[in-house]
Amino acid sequence: MHTFIDHHIRVRYAETDQMAIVYHSNYLIWMEIGRVEYCRAKGITYRDLEAQAGILLVVAEVNCRYSSPALYDEEVVIRTRIVDATPRMVRFEYEINSCADSRRLASGFTKHVFCNRERKPTKLPEKYRAAFGI
Amino acid sequence: MHTFIDHHIRVRYAETDQMAIVYHSNYLIWMEIGRVEYCRAKGITYRDLEAQAGILLVVAEVNCRYSSPALYDEEVVIRTRIVDATPRMVRFEYEINSCADSRRLASGFTKHVFCNRERKPTKLPEKYRAAFGI
Amino acid sequence: MHTFIDHHIRVRYAETDQMAIVYHSNYLIWMEIGRVEYCRAKGITYRDLEAQAGILLVVAEVNCRYSSPALYDEEVVIRTRIVDATPRMVRFEYEINSCADSRRLASGFTKHVFCNRERKPTKLPEKYRAAFGI
Amino acid sequence: MHTFIDHHIRVRYAETDQMAIVYHSNYLIWMEIGRVEYCRAKGITYRDLEAQAGILLVVAEVNCRYSSPALYDEEVVIRTRIVDATPRMVRFEYEINSCADSRRLASGFTKHVFCNRERKPTKLPEKYRAAFGI
Repeated sequence: MHTFIDHHIRVRYAETDQMAIVYHSNYLIWMEIGRVEYCRAKGITYRDLEAQAGILLVVAEVNCRYSSPALYDEEVVIRTRIVDATPRMVRFEYEINSCADSRRLASGFTKHVFCNRERKPTKLPEKYRAAFGI
Repeated sequence: MHTFIDHHIRVRYAETDQMAIVYHSNYLIWMEIGRVEYCRAKGITYRDLEAQAGILLVVAEVNCRYSSPALYDEEVVIRTRIVDATPRMVRFEYEINSCADSRRLASGFTKHVFCNRERKPTKLPEKYRAAFGI
Repeated sequence: MHTFIDHHIRVRYAETDQMAIVYHSNYLIWMEIGRVEYCRAKGITYRDLEAQAGILLVVAEVNCRYSSPALYDEEVVIRTRIVDATPRMVRFEYEINSCADSRRLASGFTKHVFCNRERKPTKLPEKYRAAFGI
Repeated sequence: MHTFIDHHIRVRYAETDQMAIVYHSNYLIWMEIGRVEYCRAKGITYRDLEAQAGILLVVAEVNCRYSSPALYDEEVVIRTRIVDATPRMVRFEYEINSCADSRRLASGFTKHVFCNRERKPTKLPEKYRAAFGI
């Protein structure tokens, strides 16, 4: 089991809805930010993985459980780790918490298939595997 | 088991990302459209449920499996049904397909807790229960 | 001066913010829908223009004046016309109104430069010019 | 003329579109972040202005000129200043640049009317005026 990498963001006004809480689909965008920063912390720039190696992390499944609503302007910590990875796929797990009071906002996972530029399944090149814990 | 209610949309340019496919969080927005139209087909305007009865369907969990990417400008059918409902909660299930070739784009579910205006769990008033199949 | 082409949409929950009105950047997405449907009404599928002819309408400027807030679930009509066009650029004008009471929600314009796949300025091919009124 | 307040963000994958550049409506969201951080730098938390004083900065007009496309994962600086303000309205001006090479991405303005909780025009209370340079 890998350790969590933390990344902080602040809730944008555009992310709220008329319930005066963050609209639920935005948590998936936050998870994306979390895994990009996870990769960066492990020495991989996802932009380069895509642009130079031609490897895409196509999303195969997402799951999110909502515990407490995130509110406008609050600081949020996205905690990301890898819980499963093979040369074919990777599964990230997330905990999303409020910074101010540490309350759990949401948790979930995303499963990705490594694909080439034509979005066909491929194997992650050897040189990138260590960063994903493979 | 309730039958599906279908609703058609067209993919917006803003919904695509640089993989040239629909960014995955948008499917959750489509699910929201699906359940609002499901309610409308059953005689309930979700806007009124919220504004007049003060009942919110707070999202407790979402799950989405992605089968084939949705592309810009294609017509998509969102198929929505209720698979479980009590006076306390409701669970919707979705199938999202391409209209042109009927290929499966995604499927998933959302689970909601009926809440009052203070976002505290409450019971769905009697008059709305039949529409949710309770 | 070209006549307006009308297209109807319904406000999504995701488009609202905690002021309980549509978040202002969504009107730009509606303008995009308006001009795509304008093109379709004139016989051009913007998707094909981009995919087959390799012509992109890169946004150079946008302006929007907000008159009255759009509300959740209301039907909105996006009225779009071309007010200026040359082989190098096109300028669209928009009126966005509520369907229920015809009140003006917003109005504005977008200016676009015709670009090739490398996003460099180019001339719109002859065969497409009539549709843009050139 | 007030001086610019700078705030840095990083482009999200969700903000790109199939042209492989940032979709143009996202710049309005960045402008919103810019003015919130401008207020914070001047000692006003916009969240509190809204929640405690009941003052909303309703958007009356936006304008944005796009110079060069913002790309995925690049760092962007949002420069914000007030160019006009009265107890009734405020006008912000923005410059949005790439951090890496200082190239201009976009520039624009937003005009806001101070409103009360019912979204009716009101006067900004005295205690907040200095922060807006009134």
